Amino acid sequence: MRVYADNAATTPLSARALEVMDRCLREVYGNPSSLHAVGQRAADALLEARRVVARCLGCVPAEVVFTSGGTEANNQALVSAALGARRAGKTHLVATAFEHHAVLNTLRRLEGQGFEVTLVPVGADGVLEVESVERALRPDTALVSVMYANNEVGTVQPLAQIGTLCRAHDVLFHTDAVQAAGHLPIDLHAQGVDLLSLSGHKFGGPKGAGALCARRGVVLTSLLVGGPQERGRRAGTENLPAIAAMAAALEESCAHMDEDARYVSALRDRLVRALGAVPHSRLNGDPVRRLPGNVSFTFEGVDSERLIMALDARGVCASAGSACGAGSPEASHVLLAMGLPQELAYSTVRLSLSPNNTAEEVDYLCAIVPQVVSELRRDSPAWREVSAGARDPLIP
Amino acid sequence: MRVYADNAATTPLSARALEVMDRCLREVYGNPSSLHAVGQRAADALLEARRVVARCLGCVPAEVVFTSGGTEANNQALVSAALGARRAGKTHLVATAFEHHAVLNTLRRLEGQGFEVTLVPVGADGVLEVESVERALRPDTALVSVMYANNEVGTVQPLAQIGTLCRAHDVLFHTDAVQAAGHLPIDLHAQGVDLLSLSGHKFGGPKGAGALCARRGVVLTSLLVGGPQERGRRAGTENLPAIAAMAAALEESCAHMDEDARYVSALRDRLVRALGAVPHSRLNGDPVRRLPGNVSFTFEGVDSERLIMALDARGVCASAGSACGAGSPEASHVLLAMGLPQELAYSTVRLSLSPNNTAEEVDYLCAIVPQVVSELRRDSPAWREVSAGARDPLIP
Repeated sequence: MRVYADNAATTPLSARALEVMDRCLREVYGNPSSLHAVGQRAADALLEARRVVARCLGCVPAEVVFTSGGTEANNQALVSAALGARRAGKTHLVATAFEHHAVLNTLRRLEGQGFEVTLVPVGADGVLEVESVERALRPDTALVSVMYANNEVGTVQPLAQIGTLCRAHDVLFHTDAVQAAGHLPIDLHAQGVDLLSLSGHKFGGPKGAGALCARRGVVLTSLLVGGPQERGRRAGTENLPAIAAMAAALEESCAHMDEDARYVSALRDRLVRALGAVPHSRLNGDPVRRLPGNVSFTFEGVDSERLIMALDARGVCASAGSACGAGSPEASHVLLAMGLPQELAYSTVRLSLSPNNTAEEVDYLCAIVPQVVSELRRDSPAWREVSAGARDPLIP
Repeated sequence: MRVYADNAATTPLSARALEVMDRCLREVYGNPSSLHAVGQRAADALLEARRVVARCLGCVPAEVVFTSGGTEANNQALVSAALGARRAGKTHLVATAFEHHAVLNTLRRLEGQGFEVTLVPVGADGVLEVESVERALRPDTALVSVMYANNEVGTVQPLAQIGTLCRAHDVLFHTDAVQAAGHLPIDLHAQGVDLLSLSGHKFGGPKGAGALCARRGVVLTSLLVGGPQERGRRAGTENLPAIAAMAAALEESCAHMDEDARYVSALRDRLVRALGAVPHSRLNGDPVRRLPGNVSFTFEGVDSERLIMALDARGVCASAGSACGAGSPEASHVLLAMGLPQELAYSTVRLSLSPNNTAEEVDYLCAIVPQVVSELRRDSPAWREVSAGARDPLIP
């Protein structure tokens, strides 16, 4: 059996997105900036995609800027907020310690340009306390950036509460919603969000398209300069086929969000129960306040990379943490931020499910993962110490 | 009859590129950073695409960085060269006055960061004299940026000679090859190019993919930060389907370059002759040293935008200048740089042909364009003055 359980890394195109993409690639090839009929057809499709995305996110079309993906959207959101606030004398930026590297590395770059960054710690359950954000605020704070849902452990953050806090302190609020969009409800204005980033290929849309939503009044700095596309907020010929397919996938995901969440979280909970029966294992992150599809599990004494490869040999696609960090020698900054010791961070696997996964596939995961964990533990010198009673296990 | 004659703005996907894209969208959906089989299949396809692109451009795979398109590649090339050279105390940048805005606007931004920019004038024939570049060089010159072929008038620049000049003066050489790639021979090393930008959708590839080739030893600054993709030179999940399709289109274009150039330039020359028979008209740019498909013509007394719309009503897709500048109230900086008076810059149309265009389509263009020009002139107050002998025509 083959089971794709790495939907947090990337999803296959949905049938609807593929259909839209295919049609646009064949028929809507014009440059949306061209004045003639072929170009205007592409411009019309672009406008329609913008309307759809805006409707799904609770904002207006003019607030949506299409980018090449989530990384570009995150980079542009932070740079825009920082450069804008500097003009008002504000140079302090706040984020959580377990943001995606597209956020953390942009903040690092901004530090080199005179900004000061405070990384707020997260709880052992992977959920941020609003009070800890409040404590980090200063009179010169320009921006708070908190991801909606974490990409490794799937925990969902109290977005609206942080939004309310930021409004009260006149601080811009950015959320990296790359893992959340299409899976959790988004309402830009109701949640008090000023800037929101998303990526098409995390909810059945294509790679190469993302969006940055910026509340009216928030001035964006263009990272890419050239032509006047996207009202001067993002230069470069618009990737219409991918944008249209992303909009279709988002619309579809939002339309089925509740039923998909019920279905997928039932699969998730069944898998969590089965993996929880493995001795000396633990679920990472709050069991309830998490993405419907995310199962992040630590198996003491098992090396993540070996586990991924052994599962791959059994037809299961899983990951150690983020795909972006795959193969990196460093332990996950997310798990370390949640207080996991380094040894356990190296013993963690992420299985991320989607509505495409079947009950039979989850049955297979429930059987095969514990089996592979036992096999690997038999070959693990570290584990032999524990089972021989030479040292106490880190997970009781 | 419908004739798409705006291939410089964007091309339809080639049949081969569509086939590759379609297959990858369906089957190669993995994240190339993932360690499992689905991810590794995408990683393999990415490596193969990189090999193909490198082979087409006369460089090695490690010298190819995939971007979201030509604008991003141009932005990154200039920023990288400038920031790198500043460390060596060089802060002077040289480009031509008729570069694309993706280059000119990046240079403007760099001026705001302490760099000094010299824009070298181009001749009335739209071809740069190597001596004028040489005169602009100074001991603190970091970079020369000259487009391979101009996007509006199609003139081809003496790339290898400028490359030789730059090497002799130890100055980095960037070329915006967005219009040239797939249409003119490229050999990064033989032509003495250090940095080269291209865009997939100008040679039958998809939108959303481009490449920046950087000669080994030229350190790139990542515009987008986040994950370690593209050896840390461009963060963000790689858009594999578009990249693979771009590589296929480039390979195909390069394989048929000579025969396509012969076929398309014969069509072009026929159209140039027909349009040249229109009184008070002129071809812009050198008639020989130009892209096979480019026909840039000025018809005195005819407003470009009206001409585009009237041609559109007859089924012909054409443009005034660049698609990026379409609808802009400003006259083309390219034509002004070539010394055209503003009135004539507003009376210019670009017809850009491809191997998809047929002899019958060109027959239609040869008939319809002069006819539409006469019609529009009848309604043009400016033209009535000329025809009544009240003033001399600007084009004899």
